[in-house]
Amino acid sequence: MQRMESVPPTHDEPAVLVLVANLGSTSFKYRLYDMSNERCLARGAVERIGDAESRCMVSIGDWADERIMSVPDHGVAVEACLDQLTDPEHGVLKDASEVAAIGFKAVHGGRLSGVFRVTAEVLEAMAEMNAAAPAHNPPYIAAMKAMQQRFADLPLVAAFETDFHQSIPAARKEYAIPRDWANEFHIRKWGFHGASHRYIATRTAELLGRDDARVISCHLGGSSSLTAIHHGKSVMTTMGMTPQTGLPQNNRVGDFDPFALPLIIERTGLTLAQTLTRLASEGGLLGLSGRSGDIRDVEQAAEQGDAGSQLALDVFVEEIRRHLGGMLVALGGADAIVFAGGIGENDAMIRGRVCAGLEEFGIVADSAANESLKGETTFHAPSSRTALWVIPTNEEIIVARQTVSALHPA
Amino acid sequence: MQRMESVPPTHDEPAVLVLVANLGSTSFKYRLYDMSNERCLARGAVERIGDAESRCMVSIGDWADERIMSVPDHGVAVEACLDQLTDPEHGVLKDASEVAAIGFKAVHGGRLSGVFRVTAEVLEAMAEMNAAAPAHNPPYIAAMKAMQQRFADLPLVAAFETDFHQSIPAARKEYAIPRDWANEFHIRKWGFHGASHRYIATRTAELLGRDDARVISCHLGGSSSLTAIHHGKSVMTTMGMTPQTGLPQNNRVGDFDPFALPLIIERTGLTLAQTLTRLASEGGLLGLSGRSGDIRDVEQAAEQGDAGSQLALDVFVEEIRRHLGGMLVALGGADAIVFAGGIGENDAMIRGRVCAGLEEFGIVADSAANESLKGETTFHAPSSRTALWVIPTNEEIIVARQTVSALHPA
Repeated sequence: MQRMESVPPTHDEPAVLVLVANLGSTSFKYRLYDMSNERCLARGAVERIGDAESRCMVSIGDWADERIMSVPDHGVAVEACLDQLTDPEHGVLKDASEVAAIGFKAVHGGRLSGVFRVTAEVLEAMAEMNAAAPAHNPPYIAAMKAMQQRFADLPLVAAFETDFHQSIPAARKEYAIPRDWANEFHIRKWGFHGASHRYIATRTAELLGRDDARVISCHLGGSSSLTAIHHGKSVMTTMGMTPQTGLPQNNRVGDFDPFALPLIIERTGLTLAQTLTRLASEGGLLGLSGRSGDIRDVEQAAEQGDAGSQLALDVFVEEIRRHLGGMLVALGGADAIVFAGGIGENDAMIRGRVCAGLEEFGIVADSAANESLKGETTFHAPSSRTALWVIPTNEEIIVARQTVSALHPA
Repeated sequence: MQRMESVPPTHDEPAVLVLVANLGSTSFKYRLYDMSNERCLARGAVERIGDAESRCMVSIGDWADERIMSVPDHGVAVEACLDQLTDPEHGVLKDASEVAAIGFKAVHGGRLSGVFRVTAEVLEAMAEMNAAAPAHNPPYIAAMKAMQQRFADLPLVAAFETDFHQSIPAARKEYAIPRDWANEFHIRKWGFHGASHRYIATRTAELLGRDDARVISCHLGGSSSLTAIHHGKSVMTTMGMTPQTGLPQNNRVGDFDPFALPLIIERTGLTLAQTLTRLASEGGLLGLSGRSGDIRDVEQAAEQGDAGSQLALDVFVEEIRRHLGGMLVALGGADAIVFAGGIGENDAMIRGRVCAGLEEFGIVADSAANESLKGETTFHAPSSRTALWVIPTNEEIIVARQTVSALHPA
């Protein structure tokens, strides 16, 4: 989706090189941008960090390189990547010091929501949220610390996924919980996928030629969320205090009744932590289908008559529609509904079912256009009052922009 | 709302006397119906059951009686009520044996959803749900057992609140949880307030003169839920596995992120049970306002500038609108939106805010009509495609009808 240049750009303006990192507990993926012109110069990944043999990959234009080596932690991973990026023949860097910063799509900063240089305070705020984001925050903190130790002079920037949702009004952000828990523990609907929804907001404004539109951004993929956007700002989103709530995900439960937990615990003998782990790893499409968390597998099985897989698809669609309806009412109608993410961009069946039967609301898809579309395009019928779009998202360019803004605060 | 006759009815048809019971852990409220003509003959209550001095009240037409006596359990409470109902001068019964059955608006039967004579199996099914409905099921079970001991020949009928929602399709009923938990522990969106939503469904069909309408029933009161109705059947509802989820209630949280629980537990040192108890007793309007769970108090404080109370009202309205939107999409549009319950019937401000800004969907309230209405009436503008109604609900008559049906199964 993001065009990658096969030759290093000519530097009319001085290059501002930003490495955008996507961390897993044992992986490090990145893209290298020149932000003077927003060109992607390279992309790469290190897999199996901590194993005896890690795999370091890079692709720069037509050149691709892969090295097997020992990468004990994320600090060493960055070093290995910089080695490849400074390859004398194919590299795009003369020296590792040319990288101005590493930007992270960090998940949960709790009381800190926005874009921050990674400091001890930022790491502390992230650690406070470990119990709410156990799969995300601890590996990010460990990786950031390892990089800080190895590259003391390289600025690290955390662009929290919650940032875009700071504009949501309190009435759609606060849970009906005791105020002390909300205020002291920062328990509210923070929302996530902020970089993707921000990209959709920005891009939709460009495509519609107006910045006051009412837009519903449907980021549907391995994890999914919807966000209502007005005047370019998030005004409502489906994920809550943690990325576990909202829509069902590939293997995570989505919205669930906490008061059912004592019953599960009573019957299974599991602890609360074990129960939540199972809900966050054996729920979602996987839990419903009993087969797979990959919607392509689920759709194939459903076509072959598997009832559980059909149920998984039906629940997924109904939950998207339920949340879409809430956003339609919140906005008083939508000027555009945008589909993005792996499922949103590629799954015509899901898009078609989400938009079906909404003629009374002025939302009408063109079935043929929906089935045959590729890339960034519309697929609404002429009679539709609401524009229906597919827009390939680009979270990395948003994080790269935010990283630059953190280096040079206004 | 329910007209009460001042003289016992003439019995052209043989009377079928049903006592409809509403149980609290230390209270017993009832209405006595003659189901041959659906007339309410008497109503009464026993308060402070288990205290040294309990209060037994009855009103029959113009006659009201109040007695202070010792009522150790719900079995004795029924006996005390029957004593008043057989009062030689004012009573409506010659003999307690004239009562054909006691019907209960029982809450959670788990695997048993519907209307049942109370048997050992029914009590067992209710007990299985104690962990999910700790405030509701244990006192009902204890009360039913006490009544069975004292009145071996009097049929008890449990009309579960989940009954009306059995028609909800699986795609809107199943959580994205592992199938074994759904199937073995009966964890799904059961829904509650079934008697009220069934009354609204029945009454709306009468008022609209058609039984195929798409209706959204908004039962708003001390506890609140919305139900989408099509062809007279529930097709979606806001409460889930337990009555704690869905809309914020007077002092209960409503929808909440279960993955926030470990953080609360870590910070407060509370157990899971204590945490859930606080969410179910210090959440909702009470938690948000920090003042009261009674919306009248909250509205008064908000008018006087209290920010927390204003937030409570705003969250309540936004959550109603969010769920309303989900139902509008599920139904593809609504022929009628109905407000019922203490708030739904009496709170013009909440009704007005819920319906505001929905012109694009063909939903337009008449402000003056909304402000001045009384009793069963519409309040939509002539331009509205959707009829807006207030319908005083009557859960008791539904339970009475269901009780008769359980005595004489088709």
